[in-house]
Amino acid sequence: MTDVKGDRSQPPSAQADPDMYLHISKRTPDGVYIRGAKAHQTGAINSHWLVVMPTLRLQPNEADFAIVGALPVDAAGITYVVGRQSCDTRGLESEMEAGNARFSGQEALVIFEDAFIPNELIFMNGETDFTAMLVERFTAFHRRSYVCKAGVGDVLIGAAALAAEYHGVENSSHIRDKLVEMTYLNETIYATGMASSYQSHLTASGAYLCDQLLANVCKQQVTRVTYEMARLAQDLAGGLLVTMPSQADHQQQQIGPLVDKYLRARQDVPTENRMRILRLIENLTLGRNAVGYLTESLHGAGSPQAQRIQIQRQMDLGAKKSLAKNLSGIR
Amino acid sequence: MTDVKGDRSQPPSAQADPDMYLHISKRTPDGVYIRGAKAHQTGAINSHWLVVMPTLRLQPNEADFAIVGALPVDAAGITYVVGRQSCDTRGLESEMEAGNARFSGQEALVIFEDAFIPNELIFMNGETDFTAMLVERFTAFHRRSYVCKAGVGDVLIGAAALAAEYHGVENSSHIRDKLVEMTYLNETIYATGMASSYQSHLTASGAYLCDQLLANVCKQQVTRVTYEMARLAQDLAGGLLVTMPSQADHQQQQIGPLVDKYLRARQDVPTENRMRILRLIENLTLGRNAVGYLTESLHGAGSPQAQRIQIQRQMDLGAKKSLAKNLSGIR
Amino acid sequence: MTDVKGDRSQPPSAQADPDMYLHISKRTPDGVYIRGAKAHQTGAINSHWLVVMPTLRLQPNEADFAIVGALPVDAAGITYVVGRQSCDTRGLESEMEAGNARFSGQEALVIFEDAFIPNELIFMNGETDFTAMLVERFTAFHRRSYVCKAGVGDVLIGAAALAAEYHGVENSSHIRDKLVEMTYLNETIYATGMASSYQSHLTASGAYLCDQLLANVCKQQVTRVTYEMARLAQDLAGGLLVTMPSQADHQQQQIGPLVDKYLRARQDVPTENRMRILRLIENLTLGRNAVGYLTESLHGAGSPQAQRIQIQRQMDLGAKKSLAKNLSGIR
Amino acid sequence: MTDVKGDRSQPPSAQADPDMYLHISKRTPDGVYIRGAKAHQTGAINSHWLVVMPTLRLQPNEADFAIVGALPVDAAGITYVVGRQSCDTRGLESEMEAGNARFSGQEALVIFEDAFIPNELIFMNGETDFTAMLVERFTAFHRRSYVCKAGVGDVLIGAAALAAEYHGVENSSHIRDKLVEMTYLNETIYATGMASSYQSHLTASGAYLCDQLLANVCKQQVTRVTYEMARLAQDLAGGLLVTMPSQADHQQQQIGPLVDKYLRARQDVPTENRMRILRLIENLTLGRNAVGYLTESLHGAGSPQAQRIQIQRQMDLGAKKSLAKNLSGIR
Repeated sequence: MTDVKGDRSQPPSAQADPDMYLHISKRTPDGVYIRGAKAHQTGAINSHWLVVMPTLRLQPNEADFAIVGALPVDAAGITYVVGRQSCDTRGLESEMEAGNARFSGQEALVIFEDAFIPNELIFMNGETDFTAMLVERFTAFHRRSYVCKAGVGDVLIGAAALAAEYHGVENSSHIRDKLVEMTYLNETIYATGMASSYQSHLTASGAYLCDQLLANVCKQQVTRVTYEMARLAQDLAGGLLVTMPSQADHQQQQIGPLVDKYLRARQDVPTENRMRILRLIENLTLGRNAVGYLTESLHGAGSPQAQRIQIQRQMDLGAKKSLAKNLSGIR
Repeated sequence: MTDVKGDRSQPPSAQADPDMYLHISKRTPDGVYIRGAKAHQTGAINSHWLVVMPTLRLQPNEADFAIVGALPVDAAGITYVVGRQSCDTRGLESEMEAGNARFSGQEALVIFEDAFIPNELIFMNGETDFTAMLVERFTAFHRRSYVCKAGVGDVLIGAAALAAEYHGVENSSHIRDKLVEMTYLNETIYATGMASSYQSHLTASGAYLCDQLLANVCKQQVTRVTYEMARLAQDLAGGLLVTMPSQADHQQQQIGPLVDKYLRARQDVPTENRMRILRLIENLTLGRNAVGYLTESLHGAGSPQAQRIQIQRQMDLGAKKSLAKNLSGIR
Repeated sequence: MTDVKGDRSQPPSAQADPDMYLHISKRTPDGVYIRGAKAHQTGAINSHWLVVMPTLRLQPNEADFAIVGALPVDAAGITYVVGRQSCDTRGLESEMEAGNARFSGQEALVIFEDAFIPNELIFMNGETDFTAMLVERFTAFHRRSYVCKAGVGDVLIGAAALAAEYHGVENSSHIRDKLVEMTYLNETIYATGMASSYQSHLTASGAYLCDQLLANVCKQQVTRVTYEMARLAQDLAGGLLVTMPSQADHQQQQIGPLVDKYLRARQDVPTENRMRILRLIENLTLGRNAVGYLTESLHGAGSPQAQRIQIQRQMDLGAKKSLAKNLSGIR
Repeated sequence: MTDVKGDRSQPPSAQADPDMYLHISKRTPDGVYIRGAKAHQTGAINSHWLVVMPTLRLQPNEADFAIVGALPVDAAGITYVVGRQSCDTRGLESEMEAGNARFSGQEALVIFEDAFIPNELIFMNGETDFTAMLVERFTAFHRRSYVCKAGVGDVLIGAAALAAEYHGVENSSHIRDKLVEMTYLNETIYATGMASSYQSHLTASGAYLCDQLLANVCKQQVTRVTYEMARLAQDLAGGLLVTMPSQADHQQQQIGPLVDKYLRARQDVPTENRMRILRLIENLTLGRNAVGYLTESLHGAGSPQAQRIQIQRQMDLGAKKSLAKNLSGIR
């Protein structure tokens, strides 16, 4: 969905380079050709199909930008440029060093150089009047889906609790309190997402649409809570999180036994376990999965300000003012 | 429910004065007599019945404290001492000065001096094993009910928006942003409360019990969000909120016209309307209804720490640790 | 300093009523006559002299508004309208009920109807070019002076600690932690204020001017920290803060002994002491001194947005951008 | 200073392995031999001398742990194990990819296997009575020194402002407001650190000791403010921060021109400049310098709870309670 946007102070039709927003470059009786690029496409490389759609409301003179359609990922004219991630090369080193060796994601810049969409796979073609509604509804679903960060949060809470357990401090009152704080914060993500879904309404098409105001509230909450949780997890992890020797040193013949001896915390917990849990917290708060847990929590499905604009549209100040007038005796 | 508790470092059975927790003072074939006091009883004066219940888990030797029963409010042996509220005497002055003249609440200290509960109105009598479950379930319902503060929040947002409108600044970007922030915060109360209800489960009795973890999360959120909303509302109200002359001065023959002239903001808004909306915000953030909107949001249905204890009990660290172990490769 | 301002979207010279900003109404060889009103004048009633000055930068055509001069408080043509305060009439009841019976403040709307300033007491007269500098420098001193709220904060911390002591919970870990949090927050006010003073620089006049950026940072900190401290103090005080019976009930012949018995917390602390400390916390967070500790902390010496505008002017983004360019290798 | 500590629930003398705290392993007429390890030693590799000192207060039976002395970094018996850092191998790739190619730091685990300190370089030897004072004073200096993070903060503010400028949005009100917020937060670090220094007092030795309470307040502020600033910087940077293709792709023959075309924001700003500034923000908030700017801000010179313990010791509740008693009329 997200175009690269060029100069943000200009609409699609006024960009110096028209390719800054994906658009129809040629029309044929059988379909359309498209040009442009979509940024930040999470999971593009391990998908089967791409669906392109406009990223913002369009004006009547921008019909060429109002294109929704599907393409197989290996269609002619599509180029994928995979982005860097924090600590991305760490995964090439060793299973333990990766922190979370079996799971990660990737984002790609997807470039379309006259890629073809046949008529039967076109879902919108020039209906600029409907782009605002499309964007609003799509982002409601998308923002509500950020409830998934509560699941990542559960992992982070568990990892922080394990670190405290391995250090022998999990019954300290301030440690318990920080785990409670993390849980409380995490559950506000879960609850706002679930409330948005429970309050869905049936649309004319037969599909349910989640509560848009609450979907935006959920996403806004995600943009703040995840960072505070990462801070608390790093607090519980201790400074070794960022000064810990490598697995290679831990396994090296001369140095290894020293590293093992000196990094042991509780006697009954293998040093390796402590190292593994710290690598997981590093992965989630500074490494590859911090990309998804933190920065994507800010910008995915729209940056914080985008949610605020939607909240402003839907907050119905008129009704709230009426309540205040009534109670204060203003006629 | 809330006993006066005496010395908080001692349980009911170890208090110097046994009346610090309500208890059975005499048993007869027809019922029981009770002594003690319940504090902070909101709406006690305008109720028809009182239901007394224990305020905390009890030990086997504390059976006399394990009493749940109903009494009509005018039963013999009950004394009500109504508490002070901020600005309580303001309501005796004038409708406009009161801020919100038609609605308010009251709390009473309810003292029981050998008041009688007949057998047919006794619901628990000595079953100390069940007091912990009773308290936990009751507080889940009660804490979830604090979703009501989202309704008060709607009024406060509306009042703050009206103040901005009357001042001629409602389109200023920082003003709009503060109204968005208030709405966002307010909706997190609504959403956590609703999610707790939607995720209720059916108990053996046929009654539904709301999700206890989310009920505690809702109440914890209420203890923080309301204060920040009050701060933002005062920000939008302007300093006149606490320096505004009285209605008596506004209506006084010589001074009144001067007050009216100098307190006018936008020419097309009567000064009185501006004064009314500021008195409402004062009422909600410093006056009688601040008691309910702020301090009761902290302590009603249990103080913040009480929610944290429940969240700790229900946060299931074991499951979360398993997730972290699995992902980090700890066997 | 603060004019009543009328419609905030218009400058002084464009107000429907020119008296919305104080201005010269007549000039004579001996001095000037002024009209208008100053709002929120803290301590006006117990002062000997008033000094009037413009509240914002002025344009060349607004010379009549560029007046600084001194008047004795009882000069002809000045009217004082004292404002309401939360719980103001409580002070008429009893020493104990007042919470802090010996100290409070007052604010007045001060109206000037052709009051006279003789030439020898005029310090600015039409020099519109200097009004911006005057306002900026004056507010720097004024905003830095909000370090005084750290002193009020000390009282509030002490009161909250006493409440915890009287309740028998002062060694509970979460209680201690909240007192530490209050102290930490309070000291950030003290430190930002002191740093602004220590980094004063000598001006050509021989007077020292405090660091303007830090003065604004100090005041901005005050607008947030005080509210969080009030919330924490109310947390430590317990719900009785807003449901406590009156002193009249405590001293009444029949009810008094019951109130005394049931409001006792620790056996060795007189109930009256507990009541006194709660009345003080009420006074500081909801009552007369909440006006000064909270709302005035927001709006006194300029509302939060006013500090942000000054911080923006003084934050020197150019220098900061240069640092970033240098480190990132941008030439 | 920081020992590896082993099981945190046990003091040095009760550890299963005595080497968990650095201690004297042998005494000779010429000096002492030491065993143990110091963790997280920032800059150890580029220093000339090491000074070892105890990390906590010691008991009389722990005299062997009360050793302060100096060793050249290449003394016999010392082993350095350099720790991993987030994105550490990125620096091996290219100047631009590193984000901040010319500056970084390193931490080492420093292991002492019977390293020798001659008598003339021993500054404490068994004086356990003085270890608490030594630790308190040292940490006061060390915590106050975290004012340095305000300098890093200036770079981050500048980088975020440049990103906004390059995107063409730096005059948007919410963008400006976030830069103001970052500056305000950053200056609270600067101010608390400076206030601590200005309020130093002269000790008997002739050295000045900074204000200990404010030093701890400064460090506590650093543990929170830096994370919020990193969040705001990532907000201003946009999602490209974590999805941006590599410099190798940007310079590759076929893909390079596409990357350059599609990542251009404002037409007059080279794509490379935009990439450079985003790499710097990545470096500071997720990469090598996030180690120093974030996690070290938490744990360096003591974790957050360590500051809270010191603040508790120095907050003088007695004096604060006296103020509250006096004002509330408690005798």
